[in-house]
Amino acid sequence: MTSQNISQEAVINSRTERLASWAANLKFTDLPDDVVQKTKDFFVDWLGCTIAGRCHPAVRAISKFASHMGPATGKSEFVDGSLDFTTSAAFASLVNGASSHVVEQDDLHNRSIMHPATVVFPAALAVAQDVGATGADFITASVVGYEVGCRVGEYLGKSHYERFHSTATGGVIGAAAATAHLLRLDTAKMLSAIGTAGTQAAGLWQFLMDATHSKQVHTGKACFDGIFAAYTARDGLLGTKDILEGSRAMGAALVPGTTNPDAIDGDLGNDYEILRSSFKWHASCRHTHPSADALLKLMSNHGVVFEDIESVVTRTYQAAINVLGMTGRGETVHQSKFSMGFVLAVVAKKGQAMITDFTEDDLEDSSLREFQQRVKMELDPEIDQAFPEKWMGSVIVITKDGRSFTELVEFAKGDPELPLTREEIERKVHTLANYGGFEEPERVKQLIERGWRLETEVSMAGFVF
Amino acid sequence: MTSQNISQEAVINSRTERLASWAANLKFTDLPDDVVQKTKDFFVDWLGCTIAGRCHPAVRAISKFASHMGPATGKSEFVDGSLDFTTSAAFASLVNGASSHVVEQDDLHNRSIMHPATVVFPAALAVAQDVGATGADFITASVVGYEVGCRVGEYLGKSHYERFHSTATGGVIGAAAATAHLLRLDTAKMLSAIGTAGTQAAGLWQFLMDATHSKQVHTGKACFDGIFAAYTARDGLLGTKDILEGSRAMGAALVPGTTNPDAIDGDLGNDYEILRSSFKWHASCRHTHPSADALLKLMSNHGVVFEDIESVVTRTYQAAINVLGMTGRGETVHQSKFSMGFVLAVVAKKGQAMITDFTEDDLEDSSLREFQQRVKMELDPEIDQAFPEKWMGSVIVITKDGRSFTELVEFAKGDPELPLTREEIERKVHTLANYGGFEEPERVKQLIERGWRLETEVSMAGFVF
Repeated sequence: MTSQNISQEAVINSRTERLASWAANLKFTDLPDDVVQKTKDFFVDWLGCTIAGRCHPAVRAISKFASHMGPATGKSEFVDGSLDFTTSAAFASLVNGASSHVVEQDDLHNRSIMHPATVVFPAALAVAQDVGATGADFITASVVGYEVGCRVGEYLGKSHYERFHSTATGGVIGAAAATAHLLRLDTAKMLSAIGTAGTQAAGLWQFLMDATHSKQVHTGKACFDGIFAAYTARDGLLGTKDILEGSRAMGAALVPGTTNPDAIDGDLGNDYEILRSSFKWHASCRHTHPSADALLKLMSNHGVVFEDIESVVTRTYQAAINVLGMTGRGETVHQSKFSMGFVLAVVAKKGQAMITDFTEDDLEDSSLREFQQRVKMELDPEIDQAFPEKWMGSVIVITKDGRSFTELVEFAKGDPELPLTREEIERKVHTLANYGGFEEPERVKQLIERGWRLETEVSMAGFVF
Repeated sequence: MTSQNISQEAVINSRTERLASWAANLKFTDLPDDVVQKTKDFFVDWLGCTIAGRCHPAVRAISKFASHMGPATGKSEFVDGSLDFTTSAAFASLVNGASSHVVEQDDLHNRSIMHPATVVFPAALAVAQDVGATGADFITASVVGYEVGCRVGEYLGKSHYERFHSTATGGVIGAAAATAHLLRLDTAKMLSAIGTAGTQAAGLWQFLMDATHSKQVHTGKACFDGIFAAYTARDGLLGTKDILEGSRAMGAALVPGTTNPDAIDGDLGNDYEILRSSFKWHASCRHTHPSADALLKLMSNHGVVFEDIESVVTRTYQAAINVLGMTGRGETVHQSKFSMGFVLAVVAKKGQAMITDFTEDDLEDSSLREFQQRVKMELDPEIDQAFPEKWMGSVIVITKDGRSFTELVEFAKGDPELPLTREEIERKVHTLANYGGFEEPERVKQLIERGWRLETEVSMAGFVF
């Protein structure tokens, strides 16, 4: 064997193991303060999303499944429309994972094109409650889940995202890693958990085309399956060791284009993925946000109002065109959030696209529907080139009186470069909780405040809902 | 719209719906007697496999997960090494699905290259017990599960199988369809169950390369996930409607080559997939069976014994070379069953390759290991062309004294054309139960006899273990 072969083999065998070793050994005291603060920001933001989604029919159905198949009570809390709020960790995460993704307000990690909070926090919270972990343990496990999940999403890359809901396929591994950290698994068992998670990775975009509920299945099951992977790894089930780069593994089977191997273990411990996640300000698909912000900016800068606008062209990246091209005109509230035309109509008319701005009545609003028809998406090669490192958008507006304006945004509101303030997060969470029918603002306030001092919690048991 | 467009659209929209409609509406009285009899054959065969695998470490780990996350007792039975035998339907199927696949004795459906019993019966049995279904209902649901699962496997085809464990990816849909039938879902909800099952479809071959336990994860989770899909469909969760042929669905995402669309709905109700499944006689990967039978026949015909053999060339199909090429020399009992060389060594030396013929001692047997080295696989274009419709194999043996023999088998023992007799099935089940440490032959006998009169059972509750 030549030295070149040896070194190549070492690289191939070590990336996923190196990631597993890092994940198994991370300690709270290793974490920079900005990482701790940002984790709490996203956790509090996630709490609001989870409460907001709890009455959705998909969440109700999943919650019924949990009640029927799981224990009647347990150590882990979940939200749903009923009063039965505890179960085992796996089922709690299943329900909360579904619930926290359904109103399209949970965070988005740009480079991996995935939503980490909705797959990491449900698993980490449920397991932390199962094992009686501290707030600091919970934060550390959540950082691990973000890091591992998002790195896998980056590894799988843009071409994977064309076919698969990366939040699910990267997410199941993030959930497994967070769980394994809370179970204090060593590197070998962490690697097993990652392997067993990866061989369960699934989630297709087909549901977007007929406005069905698979998005909630994907996130809920990513949590459940990740927890399954880590608990069974603890108890002796061996997961395959090279589930990312192996010749019959995820890269080979689930990526039609090229993978990004460096994403698996590059710069581990120096750069935290959680610092690169973006809050969602608008309650619509994240791919609409740069264009929505550009349109708002343009209208503000030039004094253009809804009624003035004859047409809008949004220049965007290919992935946005792919995803947003699947939903037609948007027949349901959820599907309408994936229509660029409808979202820009809402933004233009209301000056915002918050959760309360997408209703059954809005779907019937002929002024929105007519505006929607006058919005076109176009591919912009430069914007596409920068994606997913940067999520930019530009709009060209023609007014009814023949004027033309253009506006580009480099960063959308909520991006790491333009994060929400704590005050904005609090406001968002109150709105979300209210939307979810959780009409006790004082209790929401206490919940938020407890979130801000999360690292001081001696136990996550009985924390939340 | 031209008539051509209309007809094309009808075809596109209707294959999976037609399959769902057939699955939702099948009645016991529709079933030809040979279908009923064959279903019982495979069910009894499956009972033996399930008992045999119950003490495997992977099954134990999964069983611990079920105990930790599921209810302490329930209506559905499962086998494991402990005395705690009931839980909810989803967890019972999880454990039994893992257990029934681990000793490599469960049936194999040729055309779809998948093992249907291990993904259909665990789900159908657990749900039948949950809802108190009759034996006739259970048989009908199992026929539905075989039909839908195997048709999906055939649709996904050979190129899918190169990357994915089709038993898992087709199996989750079969499990969902069987469950949905027992829940008496209508066509629309059956279609939802199929959609939700398909968006969870997962299972990669990578585990074969390092002798890890994902095969048990794949079958157990296919059952669990299929049950999840059907129960949530019943309770209002909408699954996507075109999960097989849609532009972002399984065919597009999980099949690198060509799909076989006719397999989805061709000749529905006239031809039953369960009649095309094969029993496994040898306790090794099904891809080794045609070669093993050819070698046994050759040795018998020409009076050749183990010690005479200098070398063996097996001429086979590409899928066998792909799968069996992943396992190296076979470091564990399970992995050794995937080594063509090791299996042929066992067959040549012992005259059989039953479950008791693969032990830790055999792994250390230098005569087997030396023989293994002298076995080579070669691609045979004609055999490859006929696969997976026919699983043929041929061997060329050179003896130490320079003689050369060749033998071809068109059908392996257990194939639909050479099925096991009931007496052979009974003997196999007793051997399997004994292997699994179930040392009450009288109880096994009663269990088998109850299996033979399955259609007369008024309730599947408390049926088995």
